[in-house]
Amino acid sequence: MESRMSKHLHRAVQDLRTDLVEQFGVVEQMINMSVRALVERRPDMAVQVIETDDKVDAKDILIEEECLKLLALYQPVAIDLRWMVSAIKLNGDLERMADLACNIAERSKSLDLFPLFKVPDDINQMVTITLEMVRSALDSFIEQDAELAREVISRDDEVDRLNVELIEELQSMMKTDTDWIEPAVHCFSATRHIERIADMATNVAEETIYMVSGDIVRHKHHLEEGKAH
Amino acid sequence: MESRMSKHLHRAVQDLRTDLVEQFGVVEQMINMSVRALVERRPDMAVQVIETDDKVDAKDILIEEECLKLLALYQPVAIDLRWMVSAIKLNGDLERMADLACNIAERSKSLDLFPLFKVPDDINQMVTITLEMVRSALDSFIEQDAELAREVISRDDEVDRLNVELIEELQSMMKTDTDWIEPAVHCFSATRHIERIADMATNVAEETIYMVSGDIVRHKHHLEEGKAH
Repeated sequence: MESRMSKHLHRAVQDLRTDLVEQFGVVEQMINMSVRALVERRPDMAVQVIETDDKVDAKDILIEEECLKLLALYQPVAIDLRWMVSAIKLNGDLERMADLACNIAERSKSLDLFPLFKVPDDINQMVTITLEMVRSALDSFIEQDAELAREVISRDDEVDRLNVELIEELQSMMKTDTDWIEPAVHCFSATRHIERIADMATNVAEETIYMVSGDIVRHKHHLEEGKAH
Repeated sequence: MESRMSKHLHRAVQDLRTDLVEQFGVVEQMINMSVRALVERRPDMAVQVIETDDKVDAKDILIEEECLKLLALYQPVAIDLRWMVSAIKLNGDLERMADLACNIAERSKSLDLFPLFKVPDDINQMVTITLEMVRSALDSFIEQDAELAREVISRDDEVDRLNVELIEELQSMMKTDTDWIEPAVHCFSATRHIERIADMATNVAEETIYMVSGDIVRHKHHLEEGKAH
């Protein structure tokens, strides 16, 4: 009986993994499209991002319900219990990342009033690294790979550095022409949302390291933020 | 035996409530002090906020460990299980709010280079409402009060509105004197962190409503963001 139970739990956990990876796929596309909406001035993509959010919300609730069902049914302990709780938190983070993609899409819509404003290209590089971080953080969780998780955390500094550069670029645009102050502030908001997504990837990685090795690495980097906004 | 178990669980849940309320007390003070550091130019308070973060991190881990222990030991189901999972999420949000307070403190330190820059007073009002929201969200969770939770959500619009006003004020300062662009951008970052804290209070309230009434109210407001950054 015990082993049949654990076989069922094992299969259910596999399904959950698939669900999380699928959800990430949708969120990844939303983040990508929101930044394209911003940089390439594609209002159609902004609309699509915002429309997709309902789908992510519905799936978020389904995944959490499934986790609660598994907790009640199989009452896992030790590492299985911790995995399940981490899955619930990761699921919540994915949903919040989708919200941030919507916020970026909203900023791109506000920029429609400033068709001549050129969004700095650096933002593309920032989002590329951020998405790599999110993907690796998810992989590290799914594969229970603490080393990969540590790589994610080390990359957070890159995003912070790019963010500082972007802010300096936006500030110099504002100083050159005060007409660019308003669109630059919209753009600045968008970069903050991207930076927040990278932060969340870091949270997931920290959680993974704690689960796998028991090392508490979380939060430490926040104190070294220095110049980053 | 069953009833002795549930009596023990009941007592443990009471202790957990006390822990969460205590943790909130510390986080509340950090948020308050970080904004005073910013508005009243008190670098000593910024230092204190950042120093307190370690305490919050340690307590965050303790509370989560306690939740996992209770899940493993008492294997609660139905509403008790959901409460416990929500407590884990709330605990995580409190810790992230403390991080945001640190971020605000960091911004206040960056403003030290601009002693003549006047931080808009409106930021005080914004943080007052935000802290009321966080407190009510926590109370609604502790007391399982869906009505109070709904009030929290309705106040998020106030914070968004104040944020829009603040952004306009900061933009007009930047336009009047381009020397104020850099400090205004620091200030703008700080308001974004406050807005993020209000968002988290809303998340907690949404979670409470779902737990108490089964209504899914979460995420809806994000689509109506409009002008808010």
